[in-house]
Amino acid sequence: MKELQGRKFVLFFGIPFGVICILLGNPYFAIVSLIIMIIGIDEFYKLSVSKGAYPDRYFGFLMTIFIALVYYLKLSIGDDIIFGSLCIFVVMGILNELFQEKRNALLNISTTFAGILYVPVLLGTVIALREYDQMNGTYIVLALFISIWACDTAAFFCGTWWGRTKIFPRVSPKKTWVGSISGLLASVFVFAVFSRIELLGVNLGFIGALVLGCISGLFGQVGDFAESLMKRDAGVKDSGSILKAHGGVLDRFDSLIFAAPMIYFSVNFLTKN
Amino acid sequence: MKELQGRKFVLFFGIPFGVICILLGNPYFAIVSLIIMIIGIDEFYKLSVSKGAYPDRYFGFLMTIFIALVYYLKLSIGDDIIFGSLCIFVVMGILNELFQEKRNALLNISTTFAGILYVPVLLGTVIALREYDQMNGTYIVLALFISIWACDTAAFFCGTWWGRTKIFPRVSPKKTWVGSISGLLASVFVFAVFSRIELLGVNLGFIGALVLGCISGLFGQVGDFAESLMKRDAGVKDSGSILKAHGGVLDRFDSLIFAAPMIYFSVNFLTKN
Repeated sequence: MKELQGRKFVLFFGIPFGVICILLGNPYFAIVSLIIMIIGIDEFYKLSVSKGAYPDRYFGFLMTIFIALVYYLKLSIGDDIIFGSLCIFVVMGILNELFQEKRNALLNISTTFAGILYVPVLLGTVIALREYDQMNGTYIVLALFISIWACDTAAFFCGTWWGRTKIFPRVSPKKTWVGSISGLLASVFVFAVFSRIELLGVNLGFIGALVLGCISGLFGQVGDFAESLMKRDAGVKDSGSILKAHGGVLDRFDSLIFAAPMIYFSVNFLTKN
Repeated sequence: MKELQGRKFVLFFGIPFGVICILLGNPYFAIVSLIIMIIGIDEFYKLSVSKGAYPDRYFGFLMTIFIALVYYLKLSIGDDIIFGSLCIFVVMGILNELFQEKRNALLNISTTFAGILYVPVLLGTVIALREYDQMNGTYIVLALFISIWACDTAAFFCGTWWGRTKIFPRVSPKKTWVGSISGLLASVFVFAVFSRIELLGVNLGFIGALVLGCISGLFGQVGDFAESLMKRDAGVKDSGSILKAHGGVLDRFDSLIFAAPMIYFSVNFLTKN
């Protein structure tokens, strides 16, 4: 029942709000994404604490802001500078730990970095994707969000009705092959519709749209498993409680965390040729 | 005594071998660096194991080879591709953990990534630095290696003779302010000499060389503290025993891990203007 309530909440509040943000575009979309990422990385750090690590939250927040800015500027800052900042950020992160009087330095450093890689580096690509080619960026992000929601919904209902064989009972005890394949098809369907009503731009043909649908459906579900794995390891059911009965931000955006970067780079790759 | 023996070993075997590799240049220098990085990341992973994490060594090795290649190609692959690979590497790393039947998934993922950031991402910059502007790259790398060795040696002897006040007794019980400042001066001196005999190239003036000397001396010593912090946390004295009585690769290259990226990006910055 709680599962269903979460879905209702997303339906009546989350979806309209998300759609408005996507349509308004940056900087609004970027700001909302940034807030979500900061809450998300904080949830990751709370999971880490339950594993005995003490990551540096403020360092993580600072890097989240920085990475959001990089994606907002559409990465056009030269690869030397990107690699340079990456190195400086690693050095700073380790240096920072020198001045903390905490146990488990090695784990603290490791989880601080992992949070940054898992949340802003991956999820932040939605900001860059929204910036993509003006008009089309809007609809690609919209298609991505709807496809993930469709995938989730189809997987939930088809899995509940017809699902038998579990995929990964060790990690996620409920997910079935029937549900997963239905989710994938639903995701492809969403992108196909967006392509047919010509919202994805001319450079991205119908086949390209189907490919994006597959990527979204596949990596969205993989992201779901990945987050389950980490929650299970940390021994919690939800990553947070900011959305009240509906869990944390990571619970709601786990699919997007994996699907967004894959879609972003696929769009760049598919439209370059 | 063991400390002094390690120094002798470096003097009689390590330095000549290092100098030959630097003079020969890439691909030889790159290959030797790659081998050192693979041993180094493996040592980091062994430290992690003693903290209860089970990082994926082979994933780390694979990424080390990939990053060495990126630095060898002088980063000229476009920032979209760098960010794309970074995202794909994070997704792959987490995905990979899904198929491992190991406890502590969150820590395993975190330490796997941290090892990649700490060793190949930082240390790999020596490969890019060696490629820098043909001739000058040779001598900048040579100056870097000699300055770190000089810094180490000056800090050791001056610290032993005149040192009193400890810098960071919690992390590194022996290091003194006198030793550290002597090391810094020695490092600056090496770069000053290289600049005076006109080996660093015309774009990099005398002031530029002094700046590089400071950076090498400063970050080299910070790198030393950083490694001490992690070893202390893991409860070991040496990161490994590959160099027999002289500890592991991380023990010998801890200064370079921090100094190399800082020198690389400073050189790029100083010669661009």
